Amino acid sequence: MSDERPPPAPRGGDGAEAVSADPMEGLSCPVPWSRYERVTLAHGGGGRLTRQLVDQLFKPAFESPELEAELDGARLALGGPVAVTTDAFTVRPLVFPGGDIGSLAVHGSVNDLAMCGARPRALTASFVLEEGLPLATLERLVRSMGEAARAAGVRVVAGDTKVVERGKGDGVYIAVTALGETLAEVGPDRIEVGDRVLLSGPVGDHGTAVLLAREGLPLPEGLVSDSADVSPAALALLEAGLAVRCLRDPTRGGLATVAAELAAKSGHGVRLDAPLPVRPEVADACELVGLDPLYVACEGRFVAFVAPEDAERALAILRAHEVARGAPLVGEVVGEHPGVATLRSELGAERVLDLLSGEPLPRIC
Amino acid sequence: MSDERPPPAPRGGDGAEAVSADPMEGLSCPVPWSRYERVTLAHGGGGRLTRQLVDQLFKPAFESPELEAELDGARLALGGPVAVTTDAFTVRPLVFPGGDIGSLAVHGSVNDLAMCGARPRALTASFVLEEGLPLATLERLVRSMGEAARAAGVRVVAGDTKVVERGKGDGVYIAVTALGETLAEVGPDRIEVGDRVLLSGPVGDHGTAVLLAREGLPLPEGLVSDSADVSPAALALLEAGLAVRCLRDPTRGGLATVAAELAAKSGHGVRLDAPLPVRPEVADACELVGLDPLYVACEGRFVAFVAPEDAERALAILRAHEVARGAPLVGEVVGEHPGVATLRSELGAERVLDLLSGEPLPRIC
Repeated sequence: MSDERPPPAPRGGDGAEAVSADPMEGLSCPVPWSRYERVTLAHGGGGRLTRQLVDQLFKPAFESPELEAELDGARLALGGPVAVTTDAFTVRPLVFPGGDIGSLAVHGSVNDLAMCGARPRALTASFVLEEGLPLATLERLVRSMGEAARAAGVRVVAGDTKVVERGKGDGVYIAVTALGETLAEVGPDRIEVGDRVLLSGPVGDHGTAVLLAREGLPLPEGLVSDSADVSPAALALLEAGLAVRCLRDPTRGGLATVAAELAAKSGHGVRLDAPLPVRPEVADACELVGLDPLYVACEGRFVAFVAPEDAERALAILRAHEVARGAPLVGEVVGEHPGVATLRSELGAERVLDLLSGEPLPRIC
Repeated sequence: MSDERPPPAPRGGDGAEAVSADPMEGLSCPVPWSRYERVTLAHGGGGRLTRQLVDQLFKPAFESPELEAELDGARLALGGPVAVTTDAFTVRPLVFPGGDIGSLAVHGSVNDLAMCGARPRALTASFVLEEGLPLATLERLVRSMGEAARAAGVRVVAGDTKVVERGKGDGVYIAVTALGETLAEVGPDRIEVGDRVLLSGPVGDHGTAVLLAREGLPLPEGLVSDSADVSPAALALLEAGLAVRCLRDPTRGGLATVAAELAAKSGHGVRLDAPLPVRPEVADACELVGLDPLYVACEGRFVAFVAPEDAERALAILRAHEVARGAPLVGEVVGEHPGVATLRSELGAERVLDLLSGEPLPRIC
């Protein structure tokens, strides 16, 4: 968002004029419900324009009886221990190959909840909008969010919108809290020596696709974000009664960071075995820009630590789900090097996988 | 935040050097746990520096077993229907007379939950930090948030941190979701003709104090934000078994907007009776800057719609709480002008209170 944008202005009345496209977003559809083309500070003021946003954009997009109830919050009937996670989404660009910040916010949130062993039931959404954001862009992103939520079987039950001045934001930030019902206790403290490490699919697609799109680099054929709801696949392992110790999605910091963190937290060694699944186009792109795909974020993958006797069954269950159809066994929890994660090469040499240092890939989620 | 700031740099080792003060925040205390003076993109990268923020700042400030558990989210044992609200806090300046964005985020969230008839039990917090924010500022705000949460009897059970580049944020934005247990069903649909309208105290202090501080205008003696946790006072009405129809806090848009919205939603007339309680220093300051205090946000006030036979008892209960010690009766639900709110002057003339149009007071919460 740059400062040379014209100030927002009423559109004149008939609602059918074309809206000037915003090169950043590449959108040009009009917003028939609004006299404005762009977000103004008044859209966050709590008055008429805030009401218009809520009534004519958020409510139809989210189809939520809780939002219709018009309370300061929502009431939910949730069984079992309630699980809750929260995430702020600041990805740039707002729309990227394979997704956008709206669908990503849903996928990232329901996945985090599934990683807690919980079935996602409801979301809340807080929007921080930058003055001057085209309303058509906001509409597209909110609709995408609504569609992703419906596909994931969750509803947005409460929300908030704030508007900050031009130059104090970056179009849209979305903070989402996900609520769900705990199915099973999983966590790093349950990891045992001998557990098998399963991965739902190839790593690094999301971060690589977002980075290339942001930098304007050519995107290889077929390279798109893996952003997806993995909760049905992950929860299927729990529903089958398998001895699942720990679930984790390799977002910021990627697979290597997850392995290093879970080794440290469990106090056991975690050994991953090469070759780890990385799509050739992801490997090529990472080599081009100097990234290690094992440290690049995914938004539609997860790691499952499973007792050895249940590993084969777990793989079969995962592979029955489209998001995990190529799920491989990628490693094992070992008694050696307690607290440390390693990668063992095909020739048997082991190297330590450390936590990510520095920030090679900002703003990918 | 301006672009001329020097890039963040390690501090050299002994951790005892003074940190250069940031004029915006007016803080100069060092951050002994960090080699950095300012937030860097790597603090949001999911690696070592993110871990340092979590382990050495957020965990001590929030004292939360759920955060210590190190899951992707938290598990909570909540009874009754779960109530949930969400809000993004973008107030500027970050520190204002009578509070800061950290304590405000707690007060605003627990108050919203109380307005749903629910006892606050847990919070989640998502931070969007701007690269270059002094870590000493972040530390002060996070500690303030932790103190406010402890005072309100709630814990921060899950969190997230993202860092955006300089010029893409405004220091700190905090999105909070509050979870609680529903004590009683309240809402606009329960409002009946004859209900009395009670107000917990004078209006307009918060918005006026923030505005004057932001604009660098002189602050009259005693004019500070009313930011406070009103949940004990509000929930005491429910615990006493009174016929409370609806609770609402006059934040964005102020008391007039609340009256207009609740009139519209209930389908009844809402008549407020002058004089409404406004501190003289608030009235003077509002006159100076051309604002109507009835449209100015509070963050430590609320309105209760109560059946007429319970109104006196409700006032007595409110006045037993420090945050509501001067609570007056301010109006009544009437059969005339259905769906419309009015203000009746002391001479008996009624004027319509409309929804706020435009945005006279951005970024006050």
